[in-house]
Amino acid sequence: MQDNDRDLLPEGLGDRLPQQASASQQVRRMAHDVLASHGYERVETPLIEFEKALAHRMAGVQVRRMFRFVDSVSLRMLALRSDMTAQVARIAATGLAEAPRPLRLSYSGQVCTIKGDGLDPRRERLQLGAELIGTDSVAAAAEIVELAIEALRAAGATGISVDFTLPDLVDTLSVEALPLPEARIAAVRQMLDAKDAGGLVDVGGEGYLPLLYAVGPFASAIERIAAFECGGALASRIAGLREIAARVSDKARITLDPSERHGFEYQSWFGFTIYAEGISGSLGRGGTYRILGQTGHHPESATGFSLYPDPLVDLLAAEPQAQRKLFLPLGHDPRVAGQQRAIGWTTVAALSESDDPLALGCSHKLEGGEAVAL
Amino acid sequence: MQDNDRDLLPEGLGDRLPQQASASQQVRRMAHDVLASHGYERVETPLIEFEKALAHRMAGVQVRRMFRFVDSVSLRMLALRSDMTAQVARIAATGLAEAPRPLRLSYSGQVCTIKGDGLDPRRERLQLGAELIGTDSVAAAAEIVELAIEALRAAGATGISVDFTLPDLVDTLSVEALPLPEARIAAVRQMLDAKDAGGLVDVGGEGYLPLLYAVGPFASAIERIAAFECGGALASRIAGLREIAARVSDKARITLDPSERHGFEYQSWFGFTIYAEGISGSLGRGGTYRILGQTGHHPESATGFSLYPDPLVDLLAAEPQAQRKLFLPLGHDPRVAGQQRAIGWTTVAALSESDDPLALGCSHKLEGGEAVAL
Repeated sequence: MQDNDRDLLPEGLGDRLPQQASASQQVRRMAHDVLASHGYERVETPLIEFEKALAHRMAGVQVRRMFRFVDSVSLRMLALRSDMTAQVARIAATGLAEAPRPLRLSYSGQVCTIKGDGLDPRRERLQLGAELIGTDSVAAAAEIVELAIEALRAAGATGISVDFTLPDLVDTLSVEALPLPEARIAAVRQMLDAKDAGGLVDVGGEGYLPLLYAVGPFASAIERIAAFECGGALASRIAGLREIAARVSDKARITLDPSERHGFEYQSWFGFTIYAEGISGSLGRGGTYRILGQTGHHPESATGFSLYPDPLVDLLAAEPQAQRKLFLPLGHDPRVAGQQRAIGWTTVAALSESDDPLALGCSHKLEGGEAVAL
Repeated sequence: MQDNDRDLLPEGLGDRLPQQASASQQVRRMAHDVLASHGYERVETPLIEFEKALAHRMAGVQVRRMFRFVDSVSLRMLALRSDMTAQVARIAATGLAEAPRPLRLSYSGQVCTIKGDGLDPRRERLQLGAELIGTDSVAAAAEIVELAIEALRAAGATGISVDFTLPDLVDTLSVEALPLPEARIAAVRQMLDAKDAGGLVDVGGEGYLPLLYAVGPFASAIERIAAFECGGALASRIAGLREIAARVSDKARITLDPSERHGFEYQSWFGFTIYAEGISGSLGRGGTYRILGQTGHHPESATGFSLYPDPLVDLLAAEPQAQRKLFLPLGHDPRVAGQQRAIGWTTVAALSESDDPLALGCSHKLEGGEAVAL
């Protein structure tokens, strides 16, 4: 039918009805309250920008995954944001270039891509994150990992686990400790990414084999990588990982997968992925990275995380919720109704004789100035 | 410079830095808390939809003002939302078609247009609103006007005034009370819109002249329009306006401009515009209207309002804000820090010896387990 067809939403785009929207708002509010309490100040970014500005700051943003269109005012290409991290990096390098460092910023909002991601058909997602700009130290990384865990816990996630990785591991080792001919670096990376031990040997990367086995629960995996140590090349990284793990091991299960690079293409020494019980796939990731400065300025170190909480929202929205709503009959005293709202009631005022408190989802009714259960 | 150029934002699009973003979040949170306490359930809508779906529900949405682009998945035209009201109307007619009426929904989010509006260059605005679906009665209109006022007051607006109008006045009167030849209706409307008394007489609308003078403070203007009465054609509307005004006259200054139609093209019997002290232009408008149902279903009555609070956000962000932030020195006890956050402190943890509490905007420092003023 022509007319019904108009009501369909495009593939991968959807509404949130009240129960889902309430869960989504609760997730955002609770997570942002945690970030704010740790001194992370909120910024808001536009839905659209010049395509080049969005693409320019970080290698992780793929222009061809963005909705793009010509601006009738500037006649330049605009893009719908697909990642707010690049926008926050822009703010740090421009509007807040003079703000003291470390600069703590937080953000959240909807981001869009022209196609879904692998098995997930969603083309619009909620992104929520925090950026600590001006430092990529171990202390910064520990704060960011702890904050990501606390924000997700406050938002309602349980059974959180965090997988640590060392994104620039091959770059670090191939310089001296485990030298590789330039031409083979890419092949070794590829075999490590594929966790292909045979392939790794075939391309001459047998020296890197221990990395494939230093995987699993943090306490044991870190010992395996420490044994593999390579003349001190990894000493500071190993010490850093231990410090971060010590800070959060009472809040989440920590695992290590030192050669995992998928999704960490623009991260520097440290990266992490965060998971929660009952949710397939990750809820987000973070790590240390570098922000391109203005022309003539040096790049700046930064540490941050981005969460994509939609699966958590879906999980929370599916939990049955007790409705506590107070029906206000026709002719009720508006002052009494206001007092009931002030002590936390949600009120639903009758507008006509036919308004039915039960049909409208009310659990109570205002009677003689008091809330009486229906 | 090429590189700096990339950092510029397109005309009419901007970031909100921390002070502005904080004001924006506060406005949204406070307003939504009021809406929620009155039983308005939040819905969330996608940033993009099929162009036709956005344009179809209400005459007020202008397709040519939307950013439009081809969807590579469906090969159909998509548009970036320019008005969330049309989306909420879609939800009411589809996903919530079976929900009991009256249905109370609220929403907020960013909306975009390809060009600014008159003197305002903004191409992206915050829209926040409530819709009461299934009724356009006087009781519904009174609830919606009161709610708009309460939401704005909670958000920080002061000196609120509300201007009432009767959008379908000429349609109502021209049928019988003040008959007009079909061909002249448009001209009479135009002269009333232009507040052009001479022109009104010229086009044969002298009978409508009293409408031009029934303007101003509600108490006196309603008496002028009541005197003009026209054999009862306006009796129910006048009684309705009096009832709505009585409900809110202690909360806002009420004025009447019965022939004002600008911005009310898709409203039915009642419309209002809302203003606040210190803000030029209106903060939003609302009224009664009709939603197109699914094919084969009747249109549905509805009442609602949309606020565009950006000017209020700017006003609130300009007010000086006391910073109360607690600096946590290196080696602080994380449990004590957590306790301080639990009682309301915003904390800023030192990450290195060089972190300076004053430069980081802190007012206090954790010392011996207590917050000490700096």
